[in-house]
Amino acid sequence: MDRGYKMWLRYNQITNQEVLEEYQSCLQHLHFSVNTATILAAVDELQAGLSSMINHSLHVLKTKDQRATLLLTIEESIAKEENVQVEIEDEGYVIKSIKNNRLIIFGKTDIGVLYGVFHLLRLMQTQCSLKHIYIVEQPKNSLRMLNEWDNMDGSIERGYAGVSIFFENNQFTKDWERVKDYARLLASVGINGIAFNNVNVHEQETKLITPEYLPTVAKVANIFRMYGIKTFLSINYASPISLGGMDTADPLNEEVRQWWKDKAKEIYRFIPDFGGVLVKADSEHRPGPFTYNRTHADGANMLAGAFAPFDGIVLWRCFVYDCMQDWRDRSTDRARAAYDHFKPIDGKFHKNVVLQIKNGPMDFQVREAVSPLFGAMPNTNQMLELQITQEYTGQQKHLCYLVPQWKEILDFDTYANGVNTPIKSIVDGSQYKYDHCGITAVSNVGNDDNWTGHTLAQANLYGYARLAWNPDLSAELITDEWAKLTFGVDEQVVQVVSNMLLQSWHIYEKYTSPLGVGWMVNPGHHYGPNVDGYEYSVWGTYHFADSKGIGVDRTVATGTGFTNQYFKENKELYETLNNCPDELLLFFHHVPYTHQLKSGDTVIQHIYNTHFEGVEEAIGLKKSWLSLEAKISPSIFNGVSERLQHQIEHAKEWRDVINTYFYRKSGIEDEKNRKIY
Amino acid sequence: MDRGYKMWLRYNQITNQEVLEEYQSCLQHLHFSVNTATILAAVDELQAGLSSMINHSLHVLKTKDQRATLLLTIEESIAKEENVQVEIEDEGYVIKSIKNNRLIIFGKTDIGVLYGVFHLLRLMQTQCSLKHIYIVEQPKNSLRMLNEWDNMDGSIERGYAGVSIFFENNQFTKDWERVKDYARLLASVGINGIAFNNVNVHEQETKLITPEYLPTVAKVANIFRMYGIKTFLSINYASPISLGGMDTADPLNEEVRQWWKDKAKEIYRFIPDFGGVLVKADSEHRPGPFTYNRTHADGANMLAGAFAPFDGIVLWRCFVYDCMQDWRDRSTDRARAAYDHFKPIDGKFHKNVVLQIKNGPMDFQVREAVSPLFGAMPNTNQMLELQITQEYTGQQKHLCYLVPQWKEILDFDTYANGVNTPIKSIVDGSQYKYDHCGITAVSNVGNDDNWTGHTLAQANLYGYARLAWNPDLSAELITDEWAKLTFGVDEQVVQVVSNMLLQSWHIYEKYTSPLGVGWMVNPGHHYGPNVDGYEYSVWGTYHFADSKGIGVDRTVATGTGFTNQYFKENKELYETLNNCPDELLLFFHHVPYTHQLKSGDTVIQHIYNTHFEGVEEAIGLKKSWLSLEAKISPSIFNGVSERLQHQIEHAKEWRDVINTYFYRKSGIEDEKNRKIY
Repeated sequence: MDRGYKMWLRYNQITNQEVLEEYQSCLQHLHFSVNTATILAAVDELQAGLSSMINHSLHVLKTKDQRATLLLTIEESIAKEENVQVEIEDEGYVIKSIKNNRLIIFGKTDIGVLYGVFHLLRLMQTQCSLKHIYIVEQPKNSLRMLNEWDNMDGSIERGYAGVSIFFENNQFTKDWERVKDYARLLASVGINGIAFNNVNVHEQETKLITPEYLPTVAKVANIFRMYGIKTFLSINYASPISLGGMDTADPLNEEVRQWWKDKAKEIYRFIPDFGGVLVKADSEHRPGPFTYNRTHADGANMLAGAFAPFDGIVLWRCFVYDCMQDWRDRSTDRARAAYDHFKPIDGKFHKNVVLQIKNGPMDFQVREAVSPLFGAMPNTNQMLELQITQEYTGQQKHLCYLVPQWKEILDFDTYANGVNTPIKSIVDGSQYKYDHCGITAVSNVGNDDNWTGHTLAQANLYGYARLAWNPDLSAELITDEWAKLTFGVDEQVVQVVSNMLLQSWHIYEKYTSPLGVGWMVNPGHHYGPNVDGYEYSVWGTYHFADSKGIGVDRTVATGTGFTNQYFKENKELYETLNNCPDELLLFFHHVPYTHQLKSGDTVIQHIYNTHFEGVEEAIGLKKSWLSLEAKISPSIFNGVSERLQHQIEHAKEWRDVINTYFYRKSGIEDEKNRKIY
Repeated sequence: MDRGYKMWLRYNQITNQEVLEEYQSCLQHLHFSVNTATILAAVDELQAGLSSMINHSLHVLKTKDQRATLLLTIEESIAKEENVQVEIEDEGYVIKSIKNNRLIIFGKTDIGVLYGVFHLLRLMQTQCSLKHIYIVEQPKNSLRMLNEWDNMDGSIERGYAGVSIFFENNQFTKDWERVKDYARLLASVGINGIAFNNVNVHEQETKLITPEYLPTVAKVANIFRMYGIKTFLSINYASPISLGGMDTADPLNEEVRQWWKDKAKEIYRFIPDFGGVLVKADSEHRPGPFTYNRTHADGANMLAGAFAPFDGIVLWRCFVYDCMQDWRDRSTDRARAAYDHFKPIDGKFHKNVVLQIKNGPMDFQVREAVSPLFGAMPNTNQMLELQITQEYTGQQKHLCYLVPQWKEILDFDTYANGVNTPIKSIVDGSQYKYDHCGITAVSNVGNDDNWTGHTLAQANLYGYARLAWNPDLSAELITDEWAKLTFGVDEQVVQVVSNMLLQSWHIYEKYTSPLGVGWMVNPGHHYGPNVDGYEYSVWGTYHFADSKGIGVDRTVATGTGFTNQYFKENKELYETLNNCPDELLLFFHHVPYTHQLKSGDTVIQHIYNTHFEGVEEAIGLKKSWLSLEAKISPSIFNGVSERLQHQIEHAKEWRDVINTYFYRKSGIEDEKNRKIY
């Protein structure tokens, strides 16, 4: 039974005779010029794919001769013979049709060749012609990472697709086949780094960097290495205390510094190409340099110094804020925290430190402003952190395809270097010459049969990786690709699925989170509506709704001054009530319920309207899906149908709770007299 | 260091010379006329108490002669010789001064003697004279029970004083000394039954009635038996499925009935005087007879039939309601549920079934109406269930002495048999001739050094037991007793502590729960303020606050009709807005914030006033306590001081959240212009 395990590497049998014959004729004999583990993995993938799709495998030629209809090579001389461009980045590749109905895949490295092979297989899965192609690809971002928030007890923080594929019962699962399949899937879309333990590093996980676990970490790293993926670990900043028996983790203490130097050396003895460490310090009760009155630069640089001799890097998260805030204190604004902490120390970080910055200043809300830190630190490496796992966006029970959201973020113009300084141009290093930069994201996979719980949530993982490779790809193109790879090239299916995906974020936003307000969820697990759930809490997450109005005044004029953290053009956009886009109105301003939006509706009427519309549109999603019953494998079809039905019921709960809450609070009737409880 | 482990059995050295001499002179030689384990336990207790208090022990005379200054006996002939009343209940006792400065303690049973000994020791601890006393005591309630909500993993549902003293890691702790000390403490105040596993019987606890655990249950029962306490177990109604491998637990299925008969027989092989079973059926996702379209009478009687041959009884909880309610449905009222379910089947239950009814129709709120079920079932045994553990009343972090609340409940006139039919007269069996009845309560102990977390919370356990023995005791008398037993007879200490205790429930009510509204707590753990915490939930727990008013309309005229479940006098009291007592106003009526209370304040002003006052009074509690520093042992003094300080801080949080919530919702200013956020 097809439960979706293969994700986008399905390699379904091609039944279109014309296409089949084209592929069979040009894919006869293979020659590859080097024998690395990665090249062999590429060949294995190729053979498996072909045998499944076109029912034959390539005959491997030991020596290069004219019979070779497919050449895999990293040798420039061979590439040049075939007039192939050789000026590409290390991970880049070229696929070119060459004379006599032949193909060459050239990579600067074996990883490039592997990527080229996956590209070829993608072309075949989507039944593209291989004639007259000349594809030159190289990644826009050098770091294209995933963060798994997996704990060694097998649980996954914010995981919604079963338990960990890496850990169980405080040990590794040692399900190497599954880890390898994950590596294949990730490599097929260009992911090149993974930190596979939770950024909240608890007692057990602290020991991952000790000889008790390093041999097994190395085994995992071996698998990922074969697929071009570097292994990172999240570390506990207080490790010198927890593991070293010291009484301090002060980054300026010489013994602490020596401890980390020794530790780095030890790690690299097990994993010679270890990527480096990911650090959540001084955040949500995690230890960090603040304990010792040191700056985050002090804290990060100490680690950077220890890992630099081995080319390791330090991914240092900027998610630092006061999580014990007094809700009565209206002057403190969590949104300001990352900028306030990090902007003043621009330029103080070592070259092998990268600041990992969440897309927004709060925490992966359905809609929030972008972090003003992007572009504000020209002298410090930055990378963008996104969240694929749907913590605040329906937890893989609701359909919420995030590529459109990510596109908005990547394309957001910071004005850091004047007009046209989008976030993507900062994190890819093209604005400031960063030594290390790129994109990372919190993964959405677990050990569910289909990896992601909701089968359609596979599209988020796929889409993220494609954008990390090339942020210029359009949402439509990525969606079309994924739909074809997953459900085949049937036009109706591709169109229906693509439409469902592309609408889904807006639908989810409609019945949950009006006008950028955020946080109206149940505390802790973050699922389902709870308008006051975070209103009187310590987390700095408020909407300030009263009988007259709602929203957070973050202006310089009358509020927290957060708008001042943006470059001038954006500051002016957000500061002035009349300029501020509707969808972020309540993120930046406190307004009466009767305030008129650009759309013409009042705020309260907008709340009512969008919540009623959102439910109708959720019903529409299911209706669309049901139209595909005959064309989707039953297990996947039924699984998705059930989730869409739950989504409808839960959307009604959202609608009614939010509408009732604001009706009870404002006393203002719905203009259209719909049922509000 | 004195951390409060001994609770009210401290037996402190008596330093008052006059008192000491009196006791020493009259307590010289002991004779007891039977040798049961219980009598020996009584003698042990006596010797330990005397040796500690008056620094000598009694000389035991093998034969009764004139030297015996203290006689313990169950022989009527001996009692009669000394002109002692012998017409008493089985558990009753007489303590009488007899000629030549001697004392006799006569019990109908050895348990009576034990109780008499504990009474004598209490007199001595409170330094009462033993001259010219003639005390005749017998319990008003035949069942005086405790329910421990302990799970076998060691956790305690709603426990706030450490983990279980009975279980850890899915086994018994086998800390028999601690269990014995618990039994001594309970016997000293007349508790005679205990169900020591949680009413929510999970997988592991289901097995307590199997040979895997019954030998150890029997060991616990042996300890409790020595102290006159019968052992009960909470059982899983679906045991025939879970343990018996059957596919049904239908109470009318013959195989199921046989399974339970065999099970009862098996239990009694291990514990010949096993008390019986406690059952939470069809409640909060627990299995029950509803699954099979059977009534609760069918369900309970099936068990009753199995346990009757061994004189076992079935304690059947009436906490049955729809816990998957739709908050949008205003017609369903959880408060109605118990009466609606059980009243129609009055008289259908076997004689060895007792309905266990929570004091209120909701769930142990700070203030709620009493359950209308009391007195409404003349032909069915009833018992009252109270909650000692402070689930909704400050979780033993706040001082909240519940005896005044329980007194109100016990004295509440149901009018079931006309004027003067208080609840206490129903559950003690004096109104209707019940075969089994009494009072039970959820315990507040855990393995903390002082058993109850907050040392002053020991008073709740003490007070509960004293009321179960005799509901006519005044709160003031009980409080005075407990204060003396715990802190000695210093007048200042006794007065300050008593005042603190007696005020504390009203103080807690003031800063938390205005006018009987209830449920404004954080869901799940129930600690701290959350006005909408249960407002949009499935639990049937709402306040319906909007911009104009608040409260639940439970009238017949315009609401859910709940008031109709009371006898006429109470129905009229609650039905009419003008009659309804202020403290239950919002429990029965939905009123505007501007509604004027009997006190003269508006509802909104009452909310503001009581919340400001409550915090001031909480500050007063700490001030009172601090005045005793010189007179309380440091460990206890500091522990209580810390909790009182936390109480102040948390009371401020309550005050500010509640006031802000209602200010934001109503838009009405505080008349006194105090700070509302």
